[in-house]
Amino acid sequence: MNKKRSRIGVVAPASRMSPEVAVRVPTLARSLYPDRTPEIVFHPQCFASHGHFAGDDETRAQAFLDIANDESYDVVWFARGGYGSCRVVEAVMCRLTEPSRRKTYVGYSDAGVLLAALYRAGFEAVAHGPVAQDILRDAGDAAVGRALAWMVDRSPAALERTVSRVRKTAAFNMLQPDLDGHVLMLEEVGEAMYRIDRSLFHITSNAEIRRVSGVMLGRCSDITSNEPDFGMNEEEIVRYWCQRSAIPWLGRADIGHDANNKIVPFGAGGRRAPTV
Amino acid sequence: MNKKRSRIGVVAPASRMSPEVAVRVPTLARSLYPDRTPEIVFHPQCFASHGHFAGDDETRAQAFLDIANDESYDVVWFARGGYGSCRVVEAVMCRLTEPSRRKTYVGYSDAGVLLAALYRAGFEAVAHGPVAQDILRDAGDAAVGRALAWMVDRSPAALERTVSRVRKTAAFNMLQPDLDGHVLMLEEVGEAMYRIDRSLFHITSNAEIRRVSGVMLGRCSDITSNEPDFGMNEEEIVRYWCQRSAIPWLGRADIGHDANNKIVPFGAGGRRAPTV
Repeated sequence: MNKKRSRIGVVAPASRMSPEVAVRVPTLARSLYPDRTPEIVFHPQCFASHGHFAGDDETRAQAFLDIANDESYDVVWFARGGYGSCRVVEAVMCRLTEPSRRKTYVGYSDAGVLLAALYRAGFEAVAHGPVAQDILRDAGDAAVGRALAWMVDRSPAALERTVSRVRKTAAFNMLQPDLDGHVLMLEEVGEAMYRIDRSLFHITSNAEIRRVSGVMLGRCSDITSNEPDFGMNEEEIVRYWCQRSAIPWLGRADIGHDANNKIVPFGAGGRRAPTV
Repeated sequence: MNKKRSRIGVVAPASRMSPEVAVRVPTLARSLYPDRTPEIVFHPQCFASHGHFAGDDETRAQAFLDIANDESYDVVWFARGGYGSCRVVEAVMCRLTEPSRRKTYVGYSDAGVLLAALYRAGFEAVAHGPVAQDILRDAGDAAVGRALAWMVDRSPAALERTVSRVRKTAAFNMLQPDLDGHVLMLEEVGEAMYRIDRSLFHITSNAEIRRVSGVMLGRCSDITSNEPDFGMNEEEIVRYWCQRSAIPWLGRADIGHDANNKIVPFGAGGRRAPTV
């Protein structure tokens, strides 16, 4: 157990966070860690608004850098997904300084673009896991509690159950993963079945991806209607493309756009002893 | 003007065609070309059904090959788009024989996957243009009439207006184009603005794509709602990504998922004298 009080900075490189989150998350953190409540700082940019985004590209990039490059923070936590990280990833990656390398990064969905870039750049504590805004879901306290358990204590209970058994992992929604030698965990939300099929075509057509040690499928939720019925479910689709591209199918993963979303540290992070 | 009677084979490598199309298109062709009515053969596969698709993968691939490899046909015409060409493109490309190289291919949308593969393989008469099912649109007779004018007579009136002025062209909806040294024309249908933005990120991030001589934007129709309002329209989005990736912005193109969709031959096809 970590005796030190963690300092967590929350930023929103994609869509705007609901203000309510900044009330509910610290309340939950106090109840879970009464003696060593993590300090959770919501960067004002989380509440900014610029069309689709939580502030314009420069504002979002700078907010990320404010937290990532600040020695006093232990964790960069994504406020939420949505859409927008791809617009700032270049600016962020070019301007990160040395303190950014010693931090933990936690998020998923659209944040996958930044998590992948950080992981490619050799950052060691990058993890797929719940975002702050997940507290608004049903059972959202459990989701955010799981993220806190990882961020504060590196609690193994927060991990997706297969993480400790495999060599290297990475989890994404179905946007441009490009990792080899890893177990690749995929999940999706709000897509029609034909789009899931098309994503799998793109993913499995990529020569880089064909070097993964295998694919696991998380939950695909809020699937929109397919006219006519697609004729295969999401697992059948993933099995089909794995078989066509000679990628081992490794079964289901306990991740998804929901309150049960588990932590998947990128790389071998799940097999290290907790860093206390 | 072509004195010979054209023979056009219609296949559906993606979604199923409405049976009504097989009645209306030949009727229109007879009225437009009373003395030299093109023979339009609808492969029975166009009416097949297998979940989302017009028959299973093997059925669709074989139907395409039946027409493409048959010496007696002049044209392979796509019945419609939808989704499914990516599932058959490998099987099709491996089994094409010599007669397939002398044919004209016309389609768009999902068909872009096959058109791109044919063009990469050196096929000379590949064109973006209306599909048979476009006859069901308002003003659909004009769309199909334009496709026929190109297929039967290589009529310059059917061409997108900039095609004859530029060296090489290619038109796609926003799925995996990978052509360099061309004017790249993009269009989209049924997407939210943030998805159009994300597609442009993917397209303009690709080093191959950065070698295009410029981008033109066709019509983006049936844009689904973006919550909140995205803050940029589709032209502003394309200009933004062109500017960021140093790709010349060349303005609007007269293509789209609609009855006004013009012909864009891939490569320098639009500058050749009509092959009569």
